[in-house]
Amino acid sequence: MTRRSLLIVSALASAASALWPLPTSLSTGESFLRLASDFSIDHSSISNPPQDLLDAITRTLGFLQTDQLGVLTVDRGASNASAVKAAPEISSLKLSFDTGHSGTVTSISDEAIDDLESRVEGYSLTLPADGSAATIQANSTLGLFRGLTTFGQLWYYVDNITYAVEAPVEITDSPVYPYRGFMLDTARNFFPVSDILRTLDAMSWVKINTFHWHMVDSQSFPIEVPEFPLISANGAYGPTFVYSTADVQNIITYAAARGIDVLPEVDTPGHTAIISESYPEHVACPQATPWATYANEPPAGQLRFASADTTNFTASLLSSISARFPGKYFSTGGDEINTECYTALNASGQTFEQALDTFTGATHGVLQSSGKTTVVWEEMVLDFNLTSLRNDTIVMVWISSEDAAAVASAGFRLVQAPSNYFYLDCGGGGWVGDFPSGNSWCDPFKTWSNAYTFDPIANMTAEQAAFVIGGEQLLWTEQSHASNLDPIVWPRAAASAEIFWSGPGDVDTALPRLHDVAFRMAQRGVGAIPLQPMWCALRPFVCDLLA
Amino acid sequence: MTRRSLLIVSALASAASALWPLPTSLSTGESFLRLASDFSIDHSSISNPPQDLLDAITRTLGFLQTDQLGVLTVDRGASNASAVKAAPEISSLKLSFDTGHSGTVTSISDEAIDDLESRVEGYSLTLPADGSAATIQANSTLGLFRGLTTFGQLWYYVDNITYAVEAPVEITDSPVYPYRGFMLDTARNFFPVSDILRTLDAMSWVKINTFHWHMVDSQSFPIEVPEFPLISANGAYGPTFVYSTADVQNIITYAAARGIDVLPEVDTPGHTAIISESYPEHVACPQATPWATYANEPPAGQLRFASADTTNFTASLLSSISARFPGKYFSTGGDEINTECYTALNASGQTFEQALDTFTGATHGVLQSSGKTTVVWEEMVLDFNLTSLRNDTIVMVWISSEDAAAVASAGFRLVQAPSNYFYLDCGGGGWVGDFPSGNSWCDPFKTWSNAYTFDPIANMTAEQAAFVIGGEQLLWTEQSHASNLDPIVWPRAAASAEIFWSGPGDVDTALPRLHDVAFRMAQRGVGAIPLQPMWCALRPFVCDLLA
Repeated sequence: MTRRSLLIVSALASAASALWPLPTSLSTGESFLRLASDFSIDHSSISNPPQDLLDAITRTLGFLQTDQLGVLTVDRGASNASAVKAAPEISSLKLSFDTGHSGTVTSISDEAIDDLESRVEGYSLTLPADGSAATIQANSTLGLFRGLTTFGQLWYYVDNITYAVEAPVEITDSPVYPYRGFMLDTARNFFPVSDILRTLDAMSWVKINTFHWHMVDSQSFPIEVPEFPLISANGAYGPTFVYSTADVQNIITYAAARGIDVLPEVDTPGHTAIISESYPEHVACPQATPWATYANEPPAGQLRFASADTTNFTASLLSSISARFPGKYFSTGGDEINTECYTALNASGQTFEQALDTFTGATHGVLQSSGKTTVVWEEMVLDFNLTSLRNDTIVMVWISSEDAAAVASAGFRLVQAPSNYFYLDCGGGGWVGDFPSGNSWCDPFKTWSNAYTFDPIANMTAEQAAFVIGGEQLLWTEQSHASNLDPIVWPRAAASAEIFWSGPGDVDTALPRLHDVAFRMAQRGVGAIPLQPMWCALRPFVCDLLA
Repeated sequence: MTRRSLLIVSALASAASALWPLPTSLSTGESFLRLASDFSIDHSSISNPPQDLLDAITRTLGFLQTDQLGVLTVDRGASNASAVKAAPEISSLKLSFDTGHSGTVTSISDEAIDDLESRVEGYSLTLPADGSAATIQANSTLGLFRGLTTFGQLWYYVDNITYAVEAPVEITDSPVYPYRGFMLDTARNFFPVSDILRTLDAMSWVKINTFHWHMVDSQSFPIEVPEFPLISANGAYGPTFVYSTADVQNIITYAAARGIDVLPEVDTPGHTAIISESYPEHVACPQATPWATYANEPPAGQLRFASADTTNFTASLLSSISARFPGKYFSTGGDEINTECYTALNASGQTFEQALDTFTGATHGVLQSSGKTTVVWEEMVLDFNLTSLRNDTIVMVWISSEDAAAVASAGFRLVQAPSNYFYLDCGGGGWVGDFPSGNSWCDPFKTWSNAYTFDPIANMTAEQAAFVIGGEQLLWTEQSHASNLDPIVWPRAAASAEIFWSGPGDVDTALPRLHDVAFRMAQRGVGAIPLQPMWCALRPFVCDLLA
């Protein structure tokens, strides 16, 4: 893993160059440039362009028409209008592969689900000031797509004119980390497919490349599994709260076309109580009371992981589900396994750790045999000595950012998902009933700026740091559903998107650019919240603490 | 002020009788009752029914058709279906005035803006189990409307049938407190009229009767004032961020028809920096730096309240604005007046308190001479000795619930709006820039249950308690606009709606009913959040802390 320092170029304070995430290298001028009414994106140099690239071009052209975003200054650009009208006009953006390209054209969708280490997301972009054609070059179709995303952030609107504010622009760009994710829990509360698709769009706009889909949990099992039809029939919140096989395929396809791999998670052996509604023989202590003794959340219940039958059932279930996902990664969870539930009901004579080791070996084995790399939460490495856990397993650090070094020392690649920086639900108060004094266990609220100060390799040696493959912000949904998805997630989840694309940034100067992200998302139909009064958003740094 | 204890009737645990706010007296049976397909609301006994009552009848009939809410049980009522099909059918609801009615029929809109102490909101309601006509009786049109609101909460849906679950129902009901409000700040960020109208609808569903409209503040002045056209031209965030005179009238009319009085607030003399954009001569220390020395929030700037010219200007401005509001109450604010800004720039020779007393007397005087009762924040009573403050002024307690007793002891009627229970924005993290460690000043987040434990007369003598006229939850909008209005407000703001209609309730048993509020709001297009995983919402009390 290489680590590069950020090139933060002068123009930030003008709130004009508002790219997010910041490119590896960016140079800008001071000229306006008008977008011609017949502006087009030229892909003629790409033989047999894949359909998803053509679709991305169409979407980009659409945003150039519909974003209609005024610059974030007090007059929203009105004072630019006369100069903009006199500015040179640009008619074309030319896409091409550069000399490093293999010659075989593959789709965004195929490249998006390649091995993390094999993905090629870099590109270079030029926007000349004189009106000659802009260019994006890359070694991959995915790289061209990332460049198009950047291109779409360069434009503002005044008096019916779309214009760039800082031509000429020259960019060379590629991500620091290969994994940049967002996690959504669709089990505590359900999200319609349309909400997930809109979220995928927003993710792609800030170059997030992994949708970590925490599909199921103790409260509901909303995924249709054709081989186990009862599991959603009895485990979803109702017939309209199920992701059908077609829905899942739709989500996978939509994501991939936007450069996003879907990382499915079926959390085992804990967080599985709802399976007792369809397969009671495989679940220990279902709805046992008091729930707090047997689980971290109601209802209690976890897979009987000491049972060979249950192990076989689980392996079969995971195999069925994973077969529908073309990506190379699959998470089996492994967090918060309850000892009381095991102790109270285990009759196998194995220790907890022995049983878990056997279970993990078997369930991971079936996934690995079909070509998957397994992903687990941190307890599987830090709390147990599981000889069956292959060392290519990817580990998600969630309990605390303090735990990452230990995971790395154990020799596992890791994703930074620490609750103390990246949990988007924290600060919303306790949700357990009859507990009026209850606050969030992970108080306080994680503001964008708190998240943005996260250092992916804090307190790590260079050797440990090499195991960090990226990170993600996460939404657990005990108190969220479609009505508050956008405002809880955006623009906050852009914080980690930049950290893991660009490397850690400067929290003192990032806010004006993040306002731009929020305002542009709003123009595109994503309900990002305002981070400040608009008075502040239009006056960079004037509302800073010591201003 | 009378205070009555709540009658909490047995059926709560079934999650079926889900009225919110709880009626004064409620008795329910155990029978299902079907709504006939030709169900109608009979107003024939009311001569010359006002149009707003007819409109309310139409809306109620609409909700009976479109709510289509399944009961909040695991099967959403499927197991009720066969019994429901065999249940008696009800065809009519008869509205009538009872014997106490004056005989003169007035509109909801007129009654809604009467003196707080004169409003008559009580009603009685019967829903017989045998299919004979239901009844609502009241001494006022406003009371009939409150009864219709209750009637609309009695119905669920299964298999294309709308049905009540606990017939017969008998209710007598009237509010404990006359003031039950919700405050929205439209100055830190702007809200389109449509969002305010939707909020008014949701307020009316839980019998909130006052929209406290914090219209303007230091960051923007979004109200068109025809006599002072520059004030919004220069002070709004832009031409599309202005409430025109027609918009204001629309909001007032829409609110009144739903039993809601609009309490406008023009905060003075602090929180007025933006007026410097149009009338710089009246604003001291505009955008002075560091802002934190001269104001609690950026930008600094407040009215030169020691100046006779500024006092006259302010009186004229308040008079112009207040003339557009038909209600009897008008808030002049008065919170967070900055001493440094006064000291640095005052040249009048008066003390701060003398100047404020003169300013208050003059500005309140012009409002009072046009028939308004003035409303102020607590500092105007607790921090200063203002001889000009008439003792019919209503005082809003906001800094802390601890301050209410002192306001009452000073002899002022008061509204409970304490930040430590009722501020909906708390817990969202700091919004000031370059302050990544910043949390909300009023952390933690105020959950519904925290708000619901508020006791309006805690630590008060009976004499002090008599000054409490009600309360409200409040949304300050530094980090809110249309995208997160509904989820921040609903269903949380229903907590105070019940406290001040029904009196303090039982936080241990309220949650299932509040889930019902949230689910029904969602059916009606208001983006209320889920308070728990749906698994819990469908299983009353099972997710309680000690369950």
